[in-house]
Amino acid sequence: MSGTVHLVGAGPGAVDLLTLRAARLLGEADIVFHDALVPQEILALASKAKLVAVGKRSGRFSTAQMFINKQLLDAARRYAVIVRLKGGDPMLFGRAHEEISFLTKHSIRVEIVPGVTAALAASAELQVSLTRRGEARSVAFVTPRVGEGTAESSWIHAALAADTVAIYMAADEAASIALALVSGGKSPSTPVAVVASASLPEAKVSFTTLGRLHLLEPAAPALIFVGDVYREAAAAAAAAELLLRKPSQSA
Amino acid sequence: MSGTVHLVGAGPGAVDLLTLRAARLLGEADIVFHDALVPQEILALASKAKLVAVGKRSGRFSTAQMFINKQLLDAARRYAVIVRLKGGDPMLFGRAHEEISFLTKHSIRVEIVPGVTAALAASAELQVSLTRRGEARSVAFVTPRVGEGTAESSWIHAALAADTVAIYMAADEAASIALALVSGGKSPSTPVAVVASASLPEAKVSFTTLGRLHLLEPAAPALIFVGDVYREAAAAAAAAELLLRKPSQSA
Repeated sequence: MSGTVHLVGAGPGAVDLLTLRAARLLGEADIVFHDALVPQEILALASKAKLVAVGKRSGRFSTAQMFINKQLLDAARRYAVIVRLKGGDPMLFGRAHEEISFLTKHSIRVEIVPGVTAALAASAELQVSLTRRGEARSVAFVTPRVGEGTAESSWIHAALAADTVAIYMAADEAASIALALVSGGKSPSTPVAVVASASLPEAKVSFTTLGRLHLLEPAAPALIFVGDVYREAAAAAAAAELLLRKPSQSA
Repeated sequence: MSGTVHLVGAGPGAVDLLTLRAARLLGEADIVFHDALVPQEILALASKAKLVAVGKRSGRFSTAQMFINKQLLDAARRYAVIVRLKGGDPMLFGRAHEEISFLTKHSIRVEIVPGVTAALAASAELQVSLTRRGEARSVAFVTPRVGEGTAESSWIHAALAADTVAIYMAADEAASIALALVSGGKSPSTPVAVVASASLPEAKVSFTTLGRLHLLEPAAPALIFVGDVYREAAAAAAAAELLLRKPSQSA
């Protein structure tokens, strides 16, 4: 007899962007293993659970994946409802594969609860669709940072080929990302939107272009969006800023 | 004085994959304009609202977008809480742009509530990550059907360039999609997963390859996933089926 490990998407940050299922499972959980970035307000829903932080903030504190796997297995043998809470959605840059694979091999029942991924929360913040009828029908979700594997990654090819690009975990590498995209053939005038802390009160939206992205230094965690769908919003934001700065000259 | 139009993601179909915010807004709504495919169980949460179906099932019934825009505007002038409920997430193949743009021009306040998009619910069903550390760090979300615009679409280029591809609204065109991808250079042996009715009790998962996808005839609405990340799951499913078919020969 063993418990079920639920890999649960915590969504982008705002507590009410959890799914109903995620909120219910947190309330039922005996133990919750959570990423470092999951807000306290969300963890508070796990009222009867033991909370274990297993965050892997890239470049900072890191608990080895094997140790996390082992902790999940031990918990499954001891508790009924185990929640592994991951920021955003577990299946998109959530590094869920190792955990699913390990637990399944040990005959532990795994259930996955999808969540609202950061790019969608950021798009809601921007009020700009990732796709637009007749104009953008492909979106690439990429990250230049996931993985230490040796296989060559196609992130840059996918980013160059798609109409719209959402770049996760990109804040620290904004300048080199812009350089790679421009070297690959994207115009330096391609509109860029940067969204930090999407869905949270401190959310911040900025617009720029690929050619000027290096001047922005976005705060992590931020998402960078590249594509023509941001042209209109960027122009509107620039016009609004101009109005604020020069009220006497405004029409 | 006018109301606020909330563009709300209804998620993939299961009622408990709504966000807490979506459920709350449905309960508060005076009027709800919903896509044809949103399940009855979700609409039932809008207990005091007038329900208006404005579904645009592609190839079937279609209410012209201009008429939807006009209905939303009229509602905003009459009610306080207007919900425009869209399957999945509003900003990914949700055709939200026309509505946001029209309402904003008419000075109507628009709020967007992100949702769980179908590809993430389907990935939860498959228990296969769209990305895998060191192996797949780009995902393209594409649809070969959105839009009647004249601009050439890059969907095929994005699909060819990304490590993993999620193809929305693809069931009716599976054979031609496979042909386009193989013609573009993807191997006919590339693993394919097809998920119909993700998150619902009737959910159905099938595995095949690009070269054999035309034999499958998936039921709409289905998502088609293409990429090496599905190789392991496809092999496991094939092995399980073999065991079921030939129990006497199983090890």
